[in-house]
Amino acid sequence: MNQENKLLKAFNQTAYQVAGHGKRNVQILKDALDVIEGDIESDMYGSGKLIEDFQTKMAKYLGKESAVFFPSGTMAQQIALRIWSDQKGLKRVAYHPLSHLEIHEQDGLKELHHLEPILLGERDGVIHLEDVLNMKEDVACLLLELPQREIGGQLPEYAELEAISAHCREKGIALHLDGARLLEILPFYQKSAEEVCALFDSVYVSFYKGIGGIAGAILAGNEAFTKESKVWKRRHGGDLISLYPYILSADFYFDQRLPKMEQYYEEAKELAGYFNQCQAIETKPAVPVSNMFHVHFHLPKEKLESILVSVYEETGVGLTAYLREINETTSYSEISIGDCYSTVPKEVLQKAFQLLDEKIRVVHSD
Amino acid sequence: MNQENKLLKAFNQTAYQVAGHGKRNVQILKDALDVIEGDIESDMYGSGKLIEDFQTKMAKYLGKESAVFFPSGTMAQQIALRIWSDQKGLKRVAYHPLSHLEIHEQDGLKELHHLEPILLGERDGVIHLEDVLNMKEDVACLLLELPQREIGGQLPEYAELEAISAHCREKGIALHLDGARLLEILPFYQKSAEEVCALFDSVYVSFYKGIGGIAGAILAGNEAFTKESKVWKRRHGGDLISLYPYILSADFYFDQRLPKMEQYYEEAKELAGYFNQCQAIETKPAVPVSNMFHVHFHLPKEKLESILVSVYEETGVGLTAYLREINETTSYSEISIGDCYSTVPKEVLQKAFQLLDEKIRVVHSD
Repeated sequence: MNQENKLLKAFNQTAYQVAGHGKRNVQILKDALDVIEGDIESDMYGSGKLIEDFQTKMAKYLGKESAVFFPSGTMAQQIALRIWSDQKGLKRVAYHPLSHLEIHEQDGLKELHHLEPILLGERDGVIHLEDVLNMKEDVACLLLELPQREIGGQLPEYAELEAISAHCREKGIALHLDGARLLEILPFYQKSAEEVCALFDSVYVSFYKGIGGIAGAILAGNEAFTKESKVWKRRHGGDLISLYPYILSADFYFDQRLPKMEQYYEEAKELAGYFNQCQAIETKPAVPVSNMFHVHFHLPKEKLESILVSVYEETGVGLTAYLREINETTSYSEISIGDCYSTVPKEVLQKAFQLLDEKIRVVHSD
Repeated sequence: MNQENKLLKAFNQTAYQVAGHGKRNVQILKDALDVIEGDIESDMYGSGKLIEDFQTKMAKYLGKESAVFFPSGTMAQQIALRIWSDQKGLKRVAYHPLSHLEIHEQDGLKELHHLEPILLGERDGVIHLEDVLNMKEDVACLLLELPQREIGGQLPEYAELEAISAHCREKGIALHLDGARLLEILPFYQKSAEEVCALFDSVYVSFYKGIGGIAGAILAGNEAFTKESKVWKRRHGGDLISLYPYILSADFYFDQRLPKMEQYYEEAKELAGYFNQCQAIETKPAVPVSNMFHVHFHLPKEKLESILVSVYEETGVGLTAYLREINETTSYSEISIGDCYSTVPKEVLQKAFQLLDEKIRVVHSD
């Protein structure tokens, strides 16, 4: 077994994990279905009470005229950009260089919709007002991802967000929110979802990040926009006869975990603090602005893996299941706080970090 | 309430229905999950034992190298045609004028993949060898839908199918099977799925027609083809983090209903016989070649609706929930036999048809 597999194996044998909601297994769906009567009728190709009720609920929560349930955010967001592009008669859109659309979707936006993305902002920061003001090209739509996941979940200041929104309105640029983790940032901004979404023309939210559902997404906007999105949903092959397994679980876990977003955020700051107290470890951002952050370890990956395995084995606390190597001396891991964190006894957690710090210091002093 | 709603309402109140597997409600999923342990791990973006095992099972069943689970047939088939088109460097594909791709997908194939379909064969018949031989244009791929759903589920002779396949191989035309209802035609052809699929380069099968699952599809072919299909699946937004609600139910109902396809076929022939004995009613095809057929009623729609409502109310047998008007004197309905048919007591069924015939004769003699 290689080091990487040893880390995963040791992680899977820990009694406690600091991140996530627990295992992604079939029980997640069973629990959601347990409260549903068997005679509830399936949605049917986007129609029916089950899907329409949830869409109405989410439109209201997001403060938008209308909302459409999609099997995935990948599908919802390509479609959002396509609609704005068609409406403006302009094939260019703008987003961050590390946007999900740019690095995780096999270039679906380009291959299926023939849209040309302008990559806006620095790779290691968020998109700033200045980036938008200095953009040379005309674009139909600007997509902002809040928080910017691939850099640990960073956010612009709220006032800057308002200024970007005002500028886009003035210039006739549609503003789309990649809000995969929208609910997770509300405690930091101290804003309602409706307030944040009011800055945007269209919004996507996910149900399997902080919410912890099975899969699925909502795309919201005005009536004309969502109506058009349903046509594209069918074209993409996303207008399934039944989406209810995702809808019912999205609804169930939305109600259960929306009230916990403040808690996850506070816990993320606490956990990041523990990491930052250790030698050769830093979190990005240094102080989280949502339930997530990245941990950067400045140690050779193999040495770090050995250390983590021994910490997991000695304390029963799993800090991460994997490490991604950036270079020979640095690797990182993504942490998203969910229901698990609060189940770890504080003294056990503190002992784990104390041990981690000691073991790193030994390696460092070699 | 208008006539149409009265028909649906009367249908929903019947004790017996001749078609289908029963209501599409949440119980369908609950039943499938009841036999699954909660600690079974979710599939994860197309990987994991749960999805891989089912793909392997289906590849084996269909006699193909490899198979990929898709959320929908719409997605799977557009992708199949795109892959063959890219491989041949040719934007043209051929299919029937009433193919699902042509009439039910909001032109996704054209809008997303920019493929140009050649419509082959007559609208009221299947694609024949002659149509293929006489095709003037070069095409990358020919799609055959077996059975041809929109004309009641008709089939070419098996020998003709073999000849079409041989011709396509000779000409380097990829042959794709729209096998949404593949399992349903095997009793008529007296062939295994593997034998039928051997005539094709790629195959799609659905899990919510005869199988009666929640949603989902399999696309099968050689390794290179299915590997490429996974890239496109991600581009389409179909590579969901979890597809297991569909996979588990597909597997459950596949095992349960595959052995019943012969029964459904025999029952379809029997039921079509009852319809054909009535004045002014004929089925297409006259003798079904699968579990499905269309019923054409040669009466003004409103009169027919009144008759059907009274038959449903007097006998408790629901024959169809809806009627589609073709012209002032003809309307039709689609019947697909499932688990419901065998629950209707024969004498009750016969009484319903006797009554239907009598009521039609009264109208006809007016």
